[in-house]
Amino acid sequence: MNIDEIHAARDRLAGHARRTPLLSSPFLDELAGRRVLVKAECLQHTGSFKFRGAWSAISALDPDVRARGVLAYSSGNHAQGVARAAQIHGCPAVIVMPADAPALKIANTRGFGAEVVLYDRARESREEIGGALASERGLTLIPPYDHPMVIAGQASCGIEIAEDLPDTTADVLVCCGGGGLTSGMALAFEHHAPGLRVRPTEPDGFDDMARSLQAGEIRRNSSTTGSICDAILTPAPGDLTFPILNRLAGPGLTVSDDQAMHAMALAFKRLKLVAEPGGAVALAAALFRADEIVGDTVVCVISGGNVDPALFAEALGKFGDA
Amino acid sequence: MNIDEIHAARDRLAGHARRTPLLSSPFLDELAGRRVLVKAECLQHTGSFKFRGAWSAISALDPDVRARGVLAYSSGNHAQGVARAAQIHGCPAVIVMPADAPALKIANTRGFGAEVVLYDRARESREEIGGALASERGLTLIPPYDHPMVIAGQASCGIEIAEDLPDTTADVLVCCGGGGLTSGMALAFEHHAPGLRVRPTEPDGFDDMARSLQAGEIRRNSSTTGSICDAILTPAPGDLTFPILNRLAGPGLTVSDDQAMHAMALAFKRLKLVAEPGGAVALAAALFRADEIVGDTVVCVISGGNVDPALFAEALGKFGDA
Repeated sequence: MNIDEIHAARDRLAGHARRTPLLSSPFLDELAGRRVLVKAECLQHTGSFKFRGAWSAISALDPDVRARGVLAYSSGNHAQGVARAAQIHGCPAVIVMPADAPALKIANTRGFGAEVVLYDRARESREEIGGALASERGLTLIPPYDHPMVIAGQASCGIEIAEDLPDTTADVLVCCGGGGLTSGMALAFEHHAPGLRVRPTEPDGFDDMARSLQAGEIRRNSSTTGSICDAILTPAPGDLTFPILNRLAGPGLTVSDDQAMHAMALAFKRLKLVAEPGGAVALAAALFRADEIVGDTVVCVISGGNVDPALFAEALGKFGDA
Repeated sequence: MNIDEIHAARDRLAGHARRTPLLSSPFLDELAGRRVLVKAECLQHTGSFKFRGAWSAISALDPDVRARGVLAYSSGNHAQGVARAAQIHGCPAVIVMPADAPALKIANTRGFGAEVVLYDRARESREEIGGALASERGLTLIPPYDHPMVIAGQASCGIEIAEDLPDTTADVLVCCGGGGLTSGMALAFEHHAPGLRVRPTEPDGFDDMARSLQAGEIRRNSSTTGSICDAILTPAPGDLTFPILNRLAGPGLTVSDDQAMHAMALAFKRLKLVAEPGGAVALAAALFRADEIVGDTVVCVISGGNVDPALFAEALGKFGDA
């Protein structure tokens, strides 16, 4: 990974990904005890930053290869990002999804023109199904995070923040699953805004990245279910993303599911944004882990907004008046 | 009102108001049968476009006059816009609000540093209370819409759209109360984007502007209560705003409260935006009054997002899966 790959991805994304705004509210500043700047990546196409990496990877393919189609495994935001980026490129997309994935996510992925292949988590292997389809049709796999072109695409989110905040020194809290967004942003900041330091933010009990950074080597989560922050529950840091973060990231932060829901309600009330639980953990840390953060400004990314209406209503019921 | 006043307001707003994004979703395009572009003015400071007009009016005051303070009557978005614009200017703001206004709106207005004076709607006159305070302290009244500097400020929203959509021909649907935003945008388009035509959008039964445009003279609403679209229930078009719209606007559109709530749920699901009912009527018309709209592109403004969590949850419950 070098900065030229990141700049090339930024150029491929120009005019296709949205430049998302950096928002703020004096009420959030007061709550956090410092200035809070929120990168509204939930406003990205398909409702999450994943569109950036998917577009970067698909646009980097040789036209002949791309024309045969792409493949992804995902039940969530990566599925939608790949489906939409492929649709705009006019190439086929096959998304292998668990049959018990939320009906809405399956419908959305189909709505973006992808062929959805369902599998039974208990009896079947998605890699076997995907591998067979890939070799039969010549599809190219687009991994969710551990891929140079995906990381380079996510880096564009960091370049935008660097452009918006020249000469700023601040911690930048990033909702972290496999580390694609966090590592891409870290590389962007290294080159464009050395005063900005990424800090991965995870749900309590699923802090594989925080523990890996502390240990200096990859540590795994013992489980990938049991938090409402489904979008960022990954088994372990990636082989590409971890070394980048080990070199560039500050210590990880964690928040509880209730704090993530509280942050969702505050994003609703103070920013008029819809955040999903996994997309709200960085804002939650900015607000509720203030003593672990240094400096008079903190930046945080709301990384996605694809949340079930019932769960969102639950967050408003619990924390809407808080 | 001339275009120089509008350009001067735009210049005063530069670096203070947010340039809000123009968003879209292929799912909304499909529903509407044409391309739908959404101006996300709910992301403006204080959660509505009202900050633009308030900033414009307050920044245009002589410094000596401004230092004595400003006054507004409002229980809603204008109150917050004036309070915040005054706070940043470092001048006092007195907001006269009904004692039965929602506690959250009173708290927010106070949170922006304003002095809130409560009055009893049944027994007291807000004009009497406000007038006495104004003459005693030398406060300047900032009206909600019928004021050249307020209209010039709202026009900046139209200039941004004109810059984003050069050489486009389209109807631009605007949530319309007294007509400050709609008339300001109409003047901006007249000069900068003659292919764009504003069309005021109102709740069924509160279509004073639509009826006035049809009659060619001001018609009043028989009531200003009875719709959930509280932000845009005004007694009649303004004496300044109506002649502008009579000259420049296309026919008005109306939607039901249920359609406004449905549009709120779709803004949540497809755009990740929080819209209040009165702020969602233009999107509702774009989606559900498609046969009254011409052209292959429609623009609509989500004008505000200051909605009670319980009402928002109700909209999600009713239309979140639709």
